[in-house]
Amino acid sequence: MARGNGCCSSFCKCFFEYETPRVLVIQNKCVGTINRLIQASIVSYVIGYVCVIQQGYQDTDSVISSVTTKVKGTALANTSDLGVQVMDVADYIIPPQMENSFFVLTNMIVTPNQTQTTCPELPNPSTICTSDSDCTAGFSNPRGNGIQTGKCVNYSDTIKTCEVVAWCPLEIDTNLPKPALLAEAENFTVLIKNSIRYPKFNFNKRNILPHINSSYLKRCTFDRVTDPHCPIFRLKDIVTEAGEDFQTMAVNGGVMGILIDWSCDLDLSEKRCIPKYSFRRLDNKNPTNNVAPGYNFRFAKYYKDCDDIDTRTLIKAYGICFDVIVFGKAGKFDMVPTLVNIGAALSFLSLVNAVCDWVVLTFLSKRDYYSKLKFIHVDENEDTLSEGTMYGTQ
Amino acid sequence: MARGNGCCSSFCKCFFEYETPRVLVIQNKCVGTINRLIQASIVSYVIGYVCVIQQGYQDTDSVISSVTTKVKGTALANTSDLGVQVMDVADYIIPPQMENSFFVLTNMIVTPNQTQTTCPELPNPSTICTSDSDCTAGFSNPRGNGIQTGKCVNYSDTIKTCEVVAWCPLEIDTNLPKPALLAEAENFTVLIKNSIRYPKFNFNKRNILPHINSSYLKRCTFDRVTDPHCPIFRLKDIVTEAGEDFQTMAVNGGVMGILIDWSCDLDLSEKRCIPKYSFRRLDNKNPTNNVAPGYNFRFAKYYKDCDDIDTRTLIKAYGICFDVIVFGKAGKFDMVPTLVNIGAALSFLSLVNAVCDWVVLTFLSKRDYYSKLKFIHVDENEDTLSEGTMYGTQ
Amino acid sequence: MARGNGCCSSFCKCFFEYETPRVLVIQNKCVGTINRLIQASIVSYVIGYVCVIQQGYQDTDSVISSVTTKVKGTALANTSDLGVQVMDVADYIIPPQMENSFFVLTNMIVTPNQTQTTCPELPNPSTICTSDSDCTAGFSNPRGNGIQTGKCVNYSDTIKTCEVVAWCPLEIDTNLPKPALLAEAENFTVLIKNSIRYPKFNFNKRNILPHINSSYLKRCTFDRVTDPHCPIFRLKDIVTEAGEDFQTMAVNGGVMGILIDWSCDLDLSEKRCIPKYSFRRLDNKNPTNNVAPGYNFRFAKYYKDCDDIDTRTLIKAYGICFDVIVFGKAGKFDMVPTLVNIGAALSFLSLVNAVCDWVVLTFLSKRDYYSKLKFIHVDENEDTLSEGTMYGTQ
Repeated sequence: MARGNGCCSSFCKCFFEYETPRVLVIQNKCVGTINRLIQASIVSYVIGYVCVIQQGYQDTDSVISSVTTKVKGTALANTSDLGVQVMDVADYIIPPQMENSFFVLTNMIVTPNQTQTTCPELPNPSTICTSDSDCTAGFSNPRGNGIQTGKCVNYSDTIKTCEVVAWCPLEIDTNLPKPALLAEAENFTVLIKNSIRYPKFNFNKRNILPHINSSYLKRCTFDRVTDPHCPIFRLKDIVTEAGEDFQTMAVNGGVMGILIDWSCDLDLSEKRCIPKYSFRRLDNKNPTNNVAPGYNFRFAKYYKDCDDIDTRTLIKAYGICFDVIVFGKAGKFDMVPTLVNIGAALSFLSLVNAVCDWVVLTFLSKRDYYSKLKFIHVDENEDTLSEGTMYGTQ
Repeated sequence: MARGNGCCSSFCKCFFEYETPRVLVIQNKCVGTINRLIQASIVSYVIGYVCVIQQGYQDTDSVISSVTTKVKGTALANTSDLGVQVMDVADYIIPPQMENSFFVLTNMIVTPNQTQTTCPELPNPSTICTSDSDCTAGFSNPRGNGIQTGKCVNYSDTIKTCEVVAWCPLEIDTNLPKPALLAEAENFTVLIKNSIRYPKFNFNKRNILPHINSSYLKRCTFDRVTDPHCPIFRLKDIVTEAGEDFQTMAVNGGVMGILIDWSCDLDLSEKRCIPKYSFRRLDNKNPTNNVAPGYNFRFAKYYKDCDDIDTRTLIKAYGICFDVIVFGKAGKFDMVPTLVNIGAALSFLSLVNAVCDWVVLTFLSKRDYYSKLKFIHVDENEDTLSEGTMYGTQ
Repeated sequence: MARGNGCCSSFCKCFFEYETPRVLVIQNKCVGTINRLIQASIVSYVIGYVCVIQQGYQDTDSVISSVTTKVKGTALANTSDLGVQVMDVADYIIPPQMENSFFVLTNMIVTPNQTQTTCPELPNPSTICTSDSDCTAGFSNPRGNGIQTGKCVNYSDTIKTCEVVAWCPLEIDTNLPKPALLAEAENFTVLIKNSIRYPKFNFNKRNILPHINSSYLKRCTFDRVTDPHCPIFRLKDIVTEAGEDFQTMAVNGGVMGILIDWSCDLDLSEKRCIPKYSFRRLDNKNPTNNVAPGYNFRFAKYYKDCDDIDTRTLIKAYGICFDVIVFGKAGKFDMVPTLVNIGAALSFLSLVNAVCDWVVLTFLSKRDYYSKLKFIHVDENEDTLSEGTMYGTQ
């Protein structure tokens, strides 16, 4: 060989070299069994737990969702102020549409014909007064109803309270109708249209499944057993399945969650990716620390009377706010998580040797003999190999 | 060596020991090539797929977003009930603001001057009657319009239906205006302000990019080619890019998704983290199973007439609900995923040996010779090493 | 041994075989120290960084949340059009409820008594005209207020503009009240009820913590130091903590984020899973590229006058939109991520050998000696082992 290409030839030689560890093969039932058992448990962990149960071979994506809802039903409300009234969708859904939720009015306190004027505050320790000096003109209690004028006026024959500028007469919200005014709301139905998307997998689906036809949709109502894919829900069924009583909840209002779980294994057929509905009460029913239990808010309808004076009807609306909460993760086979999981498991296989070596060199009767075969000890301070340590390699 | 510090010295000896496997180096072009090929493919997988394509060295965070929208434009609506009307933002955006979405009214059925009284139900198989005995006082069909009084009255000269207490006259929603009343809504524009945050990386950005100045914003309209960063969208453009026809959609309404993708590689310059807009129709256009195709809801405007009687104008509003859906994941270099991915890949390198050993011990002509060099077999039942197995180690 | 069960016996033999690499143990302080140092750093990385800091042993889940809000307070607004007015919750919260956010009106431009008629457009370069020929009947500028009639009429004594069909008189929004009409809104308080759920771990919690009692809730206000768990926030405190001035923000409006971070380590006690509140301004305060700074929208109150003509009061509402943004990840011990992280770290241990081998075979004075002990070189082209390479194994 010419000297000139010595470097190249040395590289070639190195390139085609294959290094393989020299091993000691021990025929021993005990150690062999331990060895195979640990190997088997690692392999079964990878196959069983990571792949089958946790689906560690999948890449995941979170759901993107769009929800529209449509409530149907009419109810008779008998209010002392307004008399018997029929209430339909335009009356009891407030505001008329929301994203991902809808509010159904079930009870209310109506204060009609409010105008901007002055009237005595509602009596409570901080508003009851005996003379004008107890009231401060311009003072506004954040939990009061208006701005004080500084006068102390008769609230009733026996009580005097500070006068306020406010929408008068003030709302008195102590007598909440019981049973709820719209007790019949339990029979209302809601159609929930939900379309979802997993952007990473370019997967779209709706909760109105392909096999559902129009005539079925016109008459069906969701039932966990008989109609689990019908997207039309009776309000009472929702509340009942969450373990609550509709009539009790209707009085004070509350927040219900309609949870739609779109967890899907996209390695399977698309047909098997179907929504799972569940229902939960989201506010706390009767805890010890409940201020203003239930759910309510105030809104007003504004009018002008014939003298062009602004009047309003104030409504304190109690009702059930239904939050449609869509969640879920889709998984699909992907190289990276698969290899990461298998790779991590493989590195545990190297632990098998650590355990078995320990057994071999500690418990077996021939441990010294095996040790001599396995190890060569060299000491930097000695010139030659020690006699004993060389034994196994001779 | 003194016996007293024997334990310590033995620990020291053990501590400074370095164990390295003894290896057999085989010069063989075939095996060497296989060895290097597999190594190369694992290394290129790690560099190419995990790092470059999947960016496995990054930790990720999900986007947090806030959206406000502002629609501009006026349109002329010619309704039979109300005559020609100009409709501006306050009229056609209902409710006036929503989080993450906005509704543009494009068509409507107006039923003015409804009052609480009695009137015959709309005729359908369950409401048509011949005598009072066909109607049940107090019965309320969830899909009907009111509460039955128990009387059977003339709906028209030929048809009798059950009388209901309801907001009368009842809405007749069979004649939907075609073309849509607000056909001109296609020229409305919407300014979408979107600010996002990746909390894990403390990164904030808005969709109004820093290089966009005020005068540009006053005149620009989004165009995928010429103005891809202008946050002002013409409604028709949105619908058209989703492959739909605005005028068709305006008649029955629908749900459009304005998808803003904020996927960012935060290892790069912040400037390169820009939103990508796309548009999709989210409801199903013309499937076989479509009840109530499109999108509509009812709301009412409440009045008091001069006799203080509540009247309302019921509006069945058809329109396009635009959902602004913000999504995205940001990635930034992080030690943990990097090391997990490299570590997992490293453990695959140990598989190279398994493959090459198999080749060496099965296919090479000198396989027995190599085998004897690589292995020492010891059997627990034999006292000394078997002759043959010792060959390679002599 | 009978020949019949040779196969079986061979399998058994193979099954109970245990392969362990033969190793060379080098007693060398330098290499031993390097070896132990690298091992120690890998182990401390796994324990310190992956486990303690990054909690790599945990599986994570994203939060699902439901928010309701209730604002309290009244304020006096002195508008030129409507005189002094008390405004309460029903007046300044628009719409009366939203999911995850609430809008507090702080300033407004009121245009009362608009009716559908014709009036001159507001003067701007594109609407100013000198004769009817400058105006196009039926033309509607998307940024204008109505549909042009084609006439050119007097806007004032000196200016003529195109006439439009619109809700007239047109809104003039150039004189924004300063200070804001509802300057007192800074003292309003808001109660935020937030219930969250981690579905993967079946964990539910509310931001009203169990130890908070009803009487505390009636009087407390959030304060980062003294009352960090009180869910009642004073609006001014929110804005101030975000580094903004409430009065400045109230004039033009804006968007505030109330961020609730529910990041929890569910391996610890449930009691330690508590919400962390923070506040940020989400819109851009004073950038160079700000069209329509702040936040506003228009809505109308509709009336019928005594002649049954529709009139409306148009309100351009400026205010602060508070977005309640709930985020967080919960972690809980899980086998898969634990094993993946440890496994990946283990495979780095194999790198230790690579480094130490390189040291041993390159820098140690006895490198040739060690090399001969470690390696057997065989060449496919040679019949027997080369003399030198066999040295170490003799």
